[in-house]
Amino acid sequence: MAFDLIAFDADDTLWHNERSYRDGRERFARLLAAAGVTLDADGLEERVNRAELANLPFYGYGVASFALTLIETAIDLTDGRIAGVHLLEIVDLAKEMLTEEVELFPDVSNVLCRLSVEYPLMLITKGDLLHQTSKVTRSGLRERFRHVEVVSHKTPEVYSAILERHGVSPRRFLMVGNSLRSDILPVVELGGWAVHVPAELSWSHEDVDDVPDEIKRRYVEAAALNELPGIVERITKLALTT
Amino acid sequence: MAFDLIAFDADDTLWHNERSYRDGRERFARLLAAAGVTLDADGLEERVNRAELANLPFYGYGVASFALTLIETAIDLTDGRIAGVHLLEIVDLAKEMLTEEVELFPDVSNVLCRLSVEYPLMLITKGDLLHQTSKVTRSGLRERFRHVEVVSHKTPEVYSAILERHGVSPRRFLMVGNSLRSDILPVVELGGWAVHVPAELSWSHEDVDDVPDEIKRRYVEAAALNELPGIVERITKLALTT
Repeated sequence: MAFDLIAFDADDTLWHNERSYRDGRERFARLLAAAGVTLDADGLEERVNRAELANLPFYGYGVASFALTLIETAIDLTDGRIAGVHLLEIVDLAKEMLTEEVELFPDVSNVLCRLSVEYPLMLITKGDLLHQTSKVTRSGLRERFRHVEVVSHKTPEVYSAILERHGVSPRRFLMVGNSLRSDILPVVELGGWAVHVPAELSWSHEDVDDVPDEIKRRYVEAAALNELPGIVERITKLALTT
Repeated sequence: MAFDLIAFDADDTLWHNERSYRDGRERFARLLAAAGVTLDADGLEERVNRAELANLPFYGYGVASFALTLIETAIDLTDGRIAGVHLLEIVDLAKEMLTEEVELFPDVSNVLCRLSVEYPLMLITKGDLLHQTSKVTRSGLRERFRHVEVVSHKTPEVYSAILERHGVSPRRFLMVGNSLRSDILPVVELGGWAVHVPAELSWSHEDVDDVPDEIKRRYVEAAALNELPGIVERITKLALTT
């Protein structure tokens, strides 16, 4: 076998996530309209994106961060005039997002079950510790993973520390995820391998403009997760001959 | 040596934390007064405590959770009438709390330095992953700890999983912290040892009413952290003879 460990991203790789945030943004637009704020959809999107990025260093990733950003944006857009009753809808939205059902993508259970027979599997997910842990539990997938790591950022240093802690060489590590920025590039940069499974909806912050050719040689694109077992076989040959 | 690992809680054990929350509550009372809400201090305290506990399952522990709870309480107390401009002060408060200086308790550096010569040290802290990690870095204490664990809850199961992962038997584990509920009882329950260093200010949620006698035999109270090296020596004798 070419790999000592295969790791998966969770949000938008194994289960729906961005969809809730899109719904949340639409609900936000409606509550603003009800509060008398009219802004075209693109303008609003841009305002929320900007506030979200500015708040990342304070709150990190997750629903609480999203809610505080929406509250701040709503206050900002109304010069402080918006009434609490409208903002309460954002608090309610946050609680609904935190407790909503975890809906798996097709074939996830089967693919994980099949791979877990041959490989130790790990989940590496970014965001709020409590919410991510709760989603793993509620997903019904916990027992497929030997380890679950919740991290604040997915940088080469973070992956490197995880691999070191588990005694795995990057050359014998495969990461599967929907985000080029977070799941693919940092792992390939370390000398590891990756499978990119683009999600229908992804957070704009995770986009990457240009991927250098030497990076492209060490990851494979999959249209869906059910291609993974076949791809792992193919990459195994590639990894064993390079 | 009697211990293979000594672990420390962080907030209100190594550095000030509850103090910021008390200041935050006072600032909250002032902004409510400015928004026309008058409630006696005890009544307000009770409302915030109740909302905080009700929100724990949603947001967990930490500043973002605290801010969302204050926003919800303010909206609730004004029947939705409070204006966004007042709530913005809560958002500002959250950002200040998240970035304020980490102020160590007296003797912390020396005590950790001294103990780290003889024992592997670990930090076990509860709360928001990003904020806790940032505080450890900013405290200047990171290199004293071989491992840092950020957890959502401090239950016997959580301690047990950490000890198992690091191959340490509870009987050879000592935990140091300010909270009977989170740092002392669950560890002693597992068969471990503990040193309780009460903080001048502690979160009311961490109080415990009655501690059974069989628990009291396996932990020691310290008036301050500088007593720790002497206490570790004393507990070592106790641990080696029981």
